[in-house]
Amino acid sequence: MKIISKSAFLSEQSSLASTQHDQSLLAKVTDIISIVKEQGDDALFSFTKQFDCVQVNKLRVDEQEITEARNIVGESFITALKEAQENITRFHVAQKQTSWFMGEQNGVFLGQKVTPLDRVGIYVPGGKAAYPSTVLMNVIPAKLAGVTSISIVTPPQADGKVNPYVLTAAYETGVDHIYKVGGAQAIAALAYGTETIDKVNKIVGPGNSYVAQAKKMVYGDVSIDMIAGPSEICVVADKTANPRYVAADLLSQAEHDEEASAICITTSEEMANAIQDEVKKQMATLERKEIINISIERNGRLIVCPSLEVAFELVNEIAPEHLQLMVENPYNHLPVIRNAGAIFLGNYSPEALGDYFAGPNHTLPTNGTAAFASPLGVYDFVKKSSVIHYTQDALSSAADSIVKLAEAEGLTAHANAIRVRKTD
Amino acid sequence: MKIISKSAFLSEQSSLASTQHDQSLLAKVTDIISIVKEQGDDALFSFTKQFDCVQVNKLRVDEQEITEARNIVGESFITALKEAQENITRFHVAQKQTSWFMGEQNGVFLGQKVTPLDRVGIYVPGGKAAYPSTVLMNVIPAKLAGVTSISIVTPPQADGKVNPYVLTAAYETGVDHIYKVGGAQAIAALAYGTETIDKVNKIVGPGNSYVAQAKKMVYGDVSIDMIAGPSEICVVADKTANPRYVAADLLSQAEHDEEASAICITTSEEMANAIQDEVKKQMATLERKEIINISIERNGRLIVCPSLEVAFELVNEIAPEHLQLMVENPYNHLPVIRNAGAIFLGNYSPEALGDYFAGPNHTLPTNGTAAFASPLGVYDFVKKSSVIHYTQDALSSAADSIVKLAEAEGLTAHANAIRVRKTD
Repeated sequence: MKIISKSAFLSEQSSLASTQHDQSLLAKVTDIISIVKEQGDDALFSFTKQFDCVQVNKLRVDEQEITEARNIVGESFITALKEAQENITRFHVAQKQTSWFMGEQNGVFLGQKVTPLDRVGIYVPGGKAAYPSTVLMNVIPAKLAGVTSISIVTPPQADGKVNPYVLTAAYETGVDHIYKVGGAQAIAALAYGTETIDKVNKIVGPGNSYVAQAKKMVYGDVSIDMIAGPSEICVVADKTANPRYVAADLLSQAEHDEEASAICITTSEEMANAIQDEVKKQMATLERKEIINISIERNGRLIVCPSLEVAFELVNEIAPEHLQLMVENPYNHLPVIRNAGAIFLGNYSPEALGDYFAGPNHTLPTNGTAAFASPLGVYDFVKKSSVIHYTQDALSSAADSIVKLAEAEGLTAHANAIRVRKTD
Repeated sequence: MKIISKSAFLSEQSSLASTQHDQSLLAKVTDIISIVKEQGDDALFSFTKQFDCVQVNKLRVDEQEITEARNIVGESFITALKEAQENITRFHVAQKQTSWFMGEQNGVFLGQKVTPLDRVGIYVPGGKAAYPSTVLMNVIPAKLAGVTSISIVTPPQADGKVNPYVLTAAYETGVDHIYKVGGAQAIAALAYGTETIDKVNKIVGPGNSYVAQAKKMVYGDVSIDMIAGPSEICVVADKTANPRYVAADLLSQAEHDEEASAICITTSEEMANAIQDEVKKQMATLERKEIINISIERNGRLIVCPSLEVAFELVNEIAPEHLQLMVENPYNHLPVIRNAGAIFLGNYSPEALGDYFAGPNHTLPTNGTAAFASPLGVYDFVKKSSVIHYTQDALSSAADSIVKLAEAEGLTAHANAIRVRKTD
């Protein structure tokens, strides 16, 4: 793992910064979406055969397959899942929003009504991998928001079934519909509807580059959570950090995929060397060492900074998805952290704890978007409506000012709508 | 104005429903964005000459131009503006969110930190029109959120100056930077930065089809508020409504542009006829009657429904930007309204009141997106970060469950990050 200075890191980054738009991906996804719009379920079956190399004969997962799945996963998995579910629920309950109103003495009544979304679709990656935690992190806030109908789409395995861990998590969280279809075709089905799959109001959940491109293209016709990039961690370590822990956390991030990014910023050159040694040592023992090795080589960096102040400036510039503060008195530094998806404090709060278990959502803004975006939450599954009531007297007192403003904009029919009410 | 049944209306709508992607617009905007990225300020000057037909020699509006503007608009405008500003501020203060934390007995500490965005850019349409109300409705929530730097971009008038009403509103609300540049080129400048204009984290505000397309294209690199379509009103009127008022409100909506949509759903055929007569009568007296006539012809509809229940079903299907309930006891119907940007209650709460003055935001979801989107608010100008702290003991108790879940996903380096902390 390369040890570099802050300025060397920044110049490395800026040479990578310009977004690449993949024109061939764009064309392929455009085609997939328009074919799904035209041909509905038939298109889904044929794309599943083409891309997932499996012939399914129905899209909807039935009760029998769910029962089978629960028998496969075993009791101890279900116990751990339920414990995580409880923690995630307890945290997200605190995000619930209520309608509010303000009444004034003159009879003016203003407010905001909060209403859950009617229908939400969740993309759960599948195929070789299995992400039951994706199910928990997306379904629980949607349920708490009061969404009427929650659908999951997920690609089938080679045997035509859905991964049993995913199915069990969907059962435990009370998902309404589960469809075995993935890729851009699943996003198109959720956005525009087919014979079997109902059109939804919002699509959430992670996916590969096809899924991300499709979500970007249907955005506006439906709402989406975010365009997720590869996962990232940034650890800030002073001399009090434990290099074994830091290394383990960097490696856990790197195993996600070859594009994942694991960065450690430290104020101690000695610490940088110790972490470097630990990374090498632990990597050798890990199952996914091929992926990890490529990812660490490509995006893993140990950055030595002269002070924590400089380190936090860099953190705010990077706006990392996951930030671990493995420093003395980590709470003290919270006020200066402006941009980060999730902030883990101290030596015993590793990212893996947050990925599965602690309670806060693991769907976090990537690729610097923590500068403007938030973790997924209950607030993503409701929308607000303003409410306005004026009395005749209140409107009459306001009339002259409204007319003045409308006329300044040249919108005289707006002024007319106020005037007709005055002459009564 | 055409009187039709609910079913006739729905079949008319479904024939229009499929979104049209304008390939030539897409290509033009792609070009504009990449030229601004390459050439910076120079590109902005040359596009301004090309599209706005005016040669400006600097982008930043100076203090002298602002002082001049305040002298032009006159005291009575400033008074009305300040009154609106006060109302808008009072309403939006209620939207402010605070960081929150939950501490548990075992030392576990979880929470969500709320941080204002660093830099926000606001697009204010210009040229022939002047929208000081856009300034108020976008700047006030950004200011209340605590955004560090607020920039406005707006196209120059034929004389190379910015509309004085817009400038005055920007001055009164305390905007940090005002740049005279509009169109897709202004969006590109805000998204990627030029020599003069700083890159922002989020772009908000309405615009023409170039602006909307550019916002969609930069979405992901920066955050945006929404892709705004033409403005819409839907009035629900029972026999207690005043047809003069209903007509005036439909006409005020129709004057925005030829694509604007004004719909009234009524349970009374008599009322439909009375409104139709009033529309004709009032239209003849209005300045912008050419635009209004085309808009009413194209998208204006009077829909007769057998009951209010059926009317509200249709409302939820349309998900209108503005909804006026001109019915007896309008409050009683609030619970059944699921989809609407803003809900105006009673005969003395016309949309024009909300556009300028009442306090709630006039930036509202259009084109059916009220099914999943909310009015612009203070919440659009902050982002959240999760905060997680576990003690060694708390992590140790959770370790087995986390390892179980990580292994079910095949992410063994995640399990390792937990295990290294146990063996200490």
